[in-house]
Amino acid sequence: MQKPSIPKGTRDFTPTIMIRRNYIIDLIKTEFKHFGFAPIETPSMENSSTLIGKYGEEGDRLIFKIVNSGDYLKKVDENLLVQRDSTQILPKISEKALRYDLTVPFARFVVQNQNDLVFPFKRYQIQPVWRADRPQKGRFREFYQCDADVVGSDSLYQEVELIQLYDTVFSKLGLDVTIQINNRKILAGLAEVAKIEEQLIDFTVALDKLDKIGESSVKEEMKSKGISEEAITVLNPLFHFEGDDFATKIEKLKAMLNTSSIGMEGIEEVAFVYKTVFSLGLDRAKVNLNVTLARGLNYYTGCIFEVSADKVEMGSIGGGGRYDDLTSIFGLKNISGVGISFGLDRIYLALEELNLFPDLSTDSVQVLFTHFGKEEALLSLHYVKKLRKAGINAELYPEDVKIKKQLVYANKKNIPYVVMLGVEELKENTLVLKNMIEGSQTKISFQDLIQELN
Amino acid sequence: MQKPSIPKGTRDFTPTIMIRRNYIIDLIKTEFKHFGFAPIETPSMENSSTLIGKYGEEGDRLIFKIVNSGDYLKKVDENLLVQRDSTQILPKISEKALRYDLTVPFARFVVQNQNDLVFPFKRYQIQPVWRADRPQKGRFREFYQCDADVVGSDSLYQEVELIQLYDTVFSKLGLDVTIQINNRKILAGLAEVAKIEEQLIDFTVALDKLDKIGESSVKEEMKSKGISEEAITVLNPLFHFEGDDFATKIEKLKAMLNTSSIGMEGIEEVAFVYKTVFSLGLDRAKVNLNVTLARGLNYYTGCIFEVSADKVEMGSIGGGGRYDDLTSIFGLKNISGVGISFGLDRIYLALEELNLFPDLSTDSVQVLFTHFGKEEALLSLHYVKKLRKAGINAELYPEDVKIKKQLVYANKKNIPYVVMLGVEELKENTLVLKNMIEGSQTKISFQDLIQELN
Repeated sequence: MQKPSIPKGTRDFTPTIMIRRNYIIDLIKTEFKHFGFAPIETPSMENSSTLIGKYGEEGDRLIFKIVNSGDYLKKVDENLLVQRDSTQILPKISEKALRYDLTVPFARFVVQNQNDLVFPFKRYQIQPVWRADRPQKGRFREFYQCDADVVGSDSLYQEVELIQLYDTVFSKLGLDVTIQINNRKILAGLAEVAKIEEQLIDFTVALDKLDKIGESSVKEEMKSKGISEEAITVLNPLFHFEGDDFATKIEKLKAMLNTSSIGMEGIEEVAFVYKTVFSLGLDRAKVNLNVTLARGLNYYTGCIFEVSADKVEMGSIGGGGRYDDLTSIFGLKNISGVGISFGLDRIYLALEELNLFPDLSTDSVQVLFTHFGKEEALLSLHYVKKLRKAGINAELYPEDVKIKKQLVYANKKNIPYVVMLGVEELKENTLVLKNMIEGSQTKISFQDLIQELN
Repeated sequence: MQKPSIPKGTRDFTPTIMIRRNYIIDLIKTEFKHFGFAPIETPSMENSSTLIGKYGEEGDRLIFKIVNSGDYLKKVDENLLVQRDSTQILPKISEKALRYDLTVPFARFVVQNQNDLVFPFKRYQIQPVWRADRPQKGRFREFYQCDADVVGSDSLYQEVELIQLYDTVFSKLGLDVTIQINNRKILAGLAEVAKIEEQLIDFTVALDKLDKIGESSVKEEMKSKGISEEAITVLNPLFHFEGDDFATKIEKLKAMLNTSSIGMEGIEEVAFVYKTVFSLGLDRAKVNLNVTLARGLNYYTGCIFEVSADKVEMGSIGGGGRYDDLTSIFGLKNISGVGISFGLDRIYLALEELNLFPDLSTDSVQVLFTHFGKEEALLSLHYVKKLRKAGINAELYPEDVKIKKQLVYANKKNIPYVVMLGVEELKENTLVLKNMIEGSQTKISFQDLIQELN
């Protein structure tokens, strides 16, 4: 016998939590479909060669590896074993690993299945991913990603559609959000005019922290990375964009970037997307051009997005962008893609904090038939069967025990209605319906019951 | 660059397959809810100690193990390394493993979360499991299990409900099935009267093969396991039950088992379940008492079930039974449970073979707006937005390319309707609707379009 536990960073989901998670997932799924995205799934385990090297050194370390079956040490070099060279031995004893995100497996999927797909290919994928990260509040070793991506089209209407998709989903969830947008080409243009093309990543990584650490710290970080005073002076206007309206920001950017063709291209893209989105109208979300938004992942090449909830303090609840060459690592070149992701765990926490989950009780048992004896139970089961056929979640209490115990069960499970069917009701062909919320009790026919529950 | 592939025994699911799999899963999920089962999820990885030793030696071998993070060889004994003792080293370098089924994790879940659960606890769980089995046709290393279980009630109404659940799901899928039932107590009683209690497992394993290998081979196997001629003579009537009706089988069993109290108890249980199920009526399934049904798993203690599709040649598409003490391995005693499982992959194959999948095209894009220029595209996006709000899956072709290419896209994706909105229609405030199946084309208003699509 052992005291049961689960690995750190993983979770059990009880029904209450699952019903709320499913509410979010189902809503997202429905909108994915409305927007023309089709579902795919990829295996939980990929060949290590598919994953290793795609997420940087840190990422490689955080990928969960699976031990080969059978005598996994057979082929390992004696010297490596004696030296306990964990790093060198790893690829010999493990050929498979758990997926780290849905993007790299998706790129692999597109290349491998390219002959069966119709391009532009729009897919959604909702599956768990695994990372051997240090667990902490809101960060888990197993968590779901909900992604929608289009590959094979460089049309900016895709960006327009993805912003509308964010707006639709978060509006239906009742959540006020701001969708920050920017464009990697603008950042590349800025690096060009400041003559720091070589330091593009250092520059964007520092700039991305403006919200968190403030102007002077960002400048400090840039200096520490070898970005010159002169360059920082050129970039200085960037730190004073917030508060301006969209048109003013665009004018300021144009003034800064008029000598950079890639920069001007980025401005044009953002302006087209913004203008089109506004012409179509937003249900509830706000869109904000944030010139300091950079996004961590370096495969982005065009528009980038990040979503935050307005009334809660937490990181982004969604993000994405355009990547021009993701499938080339698997041998398929010149396929542009763009995609977004919904952060399920954080959306859950935001809805919980703001009390935005609707009443989901119809997803649980709506009516319990109590149990008074064999004959009554059999008739009850006949009724239960009919209710289920009418789409109502119903059950019979399985044992003939004291009514009090049966009502406690209904109460604990938050079942809103209880039916009592005893000898008298059996004779009269009636039912006693107890409303567990109001505490009221009425004698009705089965027909009335169906009506009441609908 | 590398040629992309996936580990053997795993699968990519393209949209066509996913939409069909989701059809089955959603239907099962809906009925799980109607029957009062609530969703849970457990982590993909469990502590190895939770899984190892629960599935027999063969099972232990087939569990996928995860390499510990960091310098995983640090604590391994020098001698074991030199000896390449894979077996002894494994627990030192791997503390976590992928779940092998949903039943053991469920037992662990119940014990660990017992204070948050209301008993009897009815849960459903639909998640992938992993087995390092040799891949072959219809057998995979990653596959979904769909389970419904009740723990904390030894009422036979649970068995009645589970048979009804099978009947409801398979009837809604349009699949003709036979639900075989038996009871482990009957098998135990038979072993008792044949005085082979010590050989109960050998006896049931051999008997279970009657359908596949026939009477004489089963008897051969029993003899080879040391079951005496005398015992086989006592058991002989078992081989001639098929063809009898239920009442006759019960009479025959009573004649064989009248000296065994556990055997008589099993008969009573089966008779009660059978009688109640028939009194309630079955939609489409047949129920058959099969005294040779044993089920592989040795934790079953009462009624057992196995479902097969009538018109296709394949193994069982579902199975389950009652287990009296599964949670005791994790320290919670005297909790009886009973559950059933749906075999998703085989159900899929059966529906495919019998052409029973309904038209699922409304799950894909229903209407494509073609792209003739910026102004037309913007108006199209306004319409697309309205259609989506009306629950219709719609999209705009993202690029302004030749109409032929756009129609090829619609055709390949089996999109039933295409809307064309050019300069003329823009002026007239009309649309041209092309029915891609019939090939017809009509000029209509947007209002008419919504009506047509609903």
